[in-house]
Amino acid sequence: MSWPQGPLDFPIACPLPLRDYPEIVMAHGAGGAMTLELIEKMILPVLTNDALAENHDGAVMDFRAKRLAFTTDSYVIHPLEFPGGNIGRLAVCGTVNDLAMCGARPQHLSLGLIIEEGLPTPTLWRIIQSIGQTCRAAQVQVVTGDTKVVDRGKGDGLFINMSGVGAVVSSRPISPKRIKVGDAVLLSGDIGRHGIAVLSAREGIGFETAVSTDCAPLHNIALALLEAGLDIHCMRDLTRGGLASALVELTMASGNGIDICEAAIPVSNGVRGACELLGLDPLYIANEGRFAIILPAAQASSALEILRRFPAAQQSCQIGEVVKRDGGLILETIVGSRRQLDLLSAEHLPRIC
Amino acid sequence: MSWPQGPLDFPIACPLPLRDYPEIVMAHGAGGAMTLELIEKMILPVLTNDALAENHDGAVMDFRAKRLAFTTDSYVIHPLEFPGGNIGRLAVCGTVNDLAMCGARPQHLSLGLIIEEGLPTPTLWRIIQSIGQTCRAAQVQVVTGDTKVVDRGKGDGLFINMSGVGAVVSSRPISPKRIKVGDAVLLSGDIGRHGIAVLSAREGIGFETAVSTDCAPLHNIALALLEAGLDIHCMRDLTRGGLASALVELTMASGNGIDICEAAIPVSNGVRGACELLGLDPLYIANEGRFAIILPAAQASSALEILRRFPAAQQSCQIGEVVKRDGGLILETIVGSRRQLDLLSAEHLPRIC
Repeated sequence: MSWPQGPLDFPIACPLPLRDYPEIVMAHGAGGAMTLELIEKMILPVLTNDALAENHDGAVMDFRAKRLAFTTDSYVIHPLEFPGGNIGRLAVCGTVNDLAMCGARPQHLSLGLIIEEGLPTPTLWRIIQSIGQTCRAAQVQVVTGDTKVVDRGKGDGLFINMSGVGAVVSSRPISPKRIKVGDAVLLSGDIGRHGIAVLSAREGIGFETAVSTDCAPLHNIALALLEAGLDIHCMRDLTRGGLASALVELTMASGNGIDICEAAIPVSNGVRGACELLGLDPLYIANEGRFAIILPAAQASSALEILRRFPAAQQSCQIGEVVKRDGGLILETIVGSRRQLDLLSAEHLPRIC
Repeated sequence: MSWPQGPLDFPIACPLPLRDYPEIVMAHGAGGAMTLELIEKMILPVLTNDALAENHDGAVMDFRAKRLAFTTDSYVIHPLEFPGGNIGRLAVCGTVNDLAMCGARPQHLSLGLIIEEGLPTPTLWRIIQSIGQTCRAAQVQVVTGDTKVVDRGKGDGLFINMSGVGAVVSSRPISPKRIKVGDAVLLSGDIGRHGIAVLSAREGIGFETAVSTDCAPLHNIALALLEAGLDIHCMRDLTRGGLASALVELTMASGNGIDICEAAIPVSNGVRGACELLGLDPLYIANEGRFAIILPAAQASSALEILRRFPAAQQSCQIGEVVKRDGGLILETIVGSRRQLDLLSAEHLPRIC
């Protein structure tokens, strides 16, 4: 089953001879003629650029900055396609966002495919097109890659690893260690949509209000904050473990406490309804297009003004502040009680990214 | 079963409480407290460095060069451990070697783990120790990483993705496009050991002469050639598909032919015996510590003199030359006939790297 994923800007017909190869077979990963055919017909035309076309063991690019940001993530999301996106779009957004959170402009990406024998070739083709489209929208390029195929039953359709490099544009470090008592904690939008979208696709649950992933590249938003000269102390995207886990990690790394206010945290009706139905807490649900910003309180309103210029951050708001306390994240609930939020000790929603 | 892998320079006792977690469970990948415990107890102490200790979404490093090399590979080798190495040592060597083949000094690595639920914790610990040890020997650092766990039956023990970046030291491009008629083709040592070692471990075959992988970092050898001022036109490590596939790809990319001489190509007795027994061609067997060098014929003897200073390249020799012909790799056999070598159309030895 495939979900609406927005228009694809590339011809949809799969360029591999589908009559011969309706599914990926082991030989597509053996490094011989069939691997070459897969790469030359399905990957290079979509992700075309000079570095990739060299078809060497690695890519060589000019690099004009003194500080380099470098990140990696493996994507093992199940199912591969879900409302509003797929594993390919997720990989590009996740990588670009991790670089943005380092204060860097994302530039070059790598693409490592681990394909399970039997993956339908048209599924792979849709995913590669999404990667190409998301790269073009985010103005980044896949410059190097690798394709492996594993036996049926030894994988799960497709795993993607994506690494990325970029030039750091922030002159001051962006690090949990710079978080100070009195700093404002901002959130770039409503939470929980990615996790609920994936869950609905996985379990075939139809919620009253359909929920699409929030998956989106955030670097233009983050760079706008930096280019405005704001003294961002720390940024963190709210992926696996959601808002609560990200903020708990920041309290641990910074040695300060954070207080947040439940009433200030935007949650869509669709996510709220799904969470109530399933007994889940939206604070712990994964997002792929939301981030927290920690900066001096005096700069909060300027930051919010910039954030709200971007469609993906229109619901930005201040949700809390950094307080003098030896670590710990406290939620002031809508009924006025105070609840300590911890890292989850075990799995909540596995394989959400 | 674990194979001799040389001494480990790190204490062997696994730091996770094995009574509680003899195997990796899904929660180790859920992004919560158990993921943190796995990373803090098993990974950070072995791969320790400042960038990794930041524990951020990515790493930020100083970078002092104008050209950046960037590479990625996923390692899906089966079995995870084999004579002379394991998937961890393989990942570091493979990544370092791909950067070296671009004329770069390897510097920073990423480590993406995709663990199948049920992987014995001590196996993971041995592999992580190997990664640390190989990094120290190769003078590179893992600066960023990611850990995912997939359900039992949806993976195969462990897949590793490793990407790497490095500063390009070669002032002239190293590319198949610079290959010229008359160039010498050098080989850095005997071929086929990695593939045969993995095959013997996988099938439980004991050959007359035990064969260990040739897996080794090659960057110091490659950099020595460049630093001596030799005009290397192209270098290629001889991994998946072996010597023959690598050279066929170079003929395709350069538009020239290559002639090689079977009698000149070193093959150990162990590899030769195993290949005869199994009906395999050593020219197509994967290596993880061998590379081909293509450079002006007048510089071949200087290059060989430098190569032979390194233990891993003592058997270096010239095996052929670039000839005026519209592509194609021709082997002059030991009986004097000429045989055209092509890319294999299907799998030979799958999951060898």
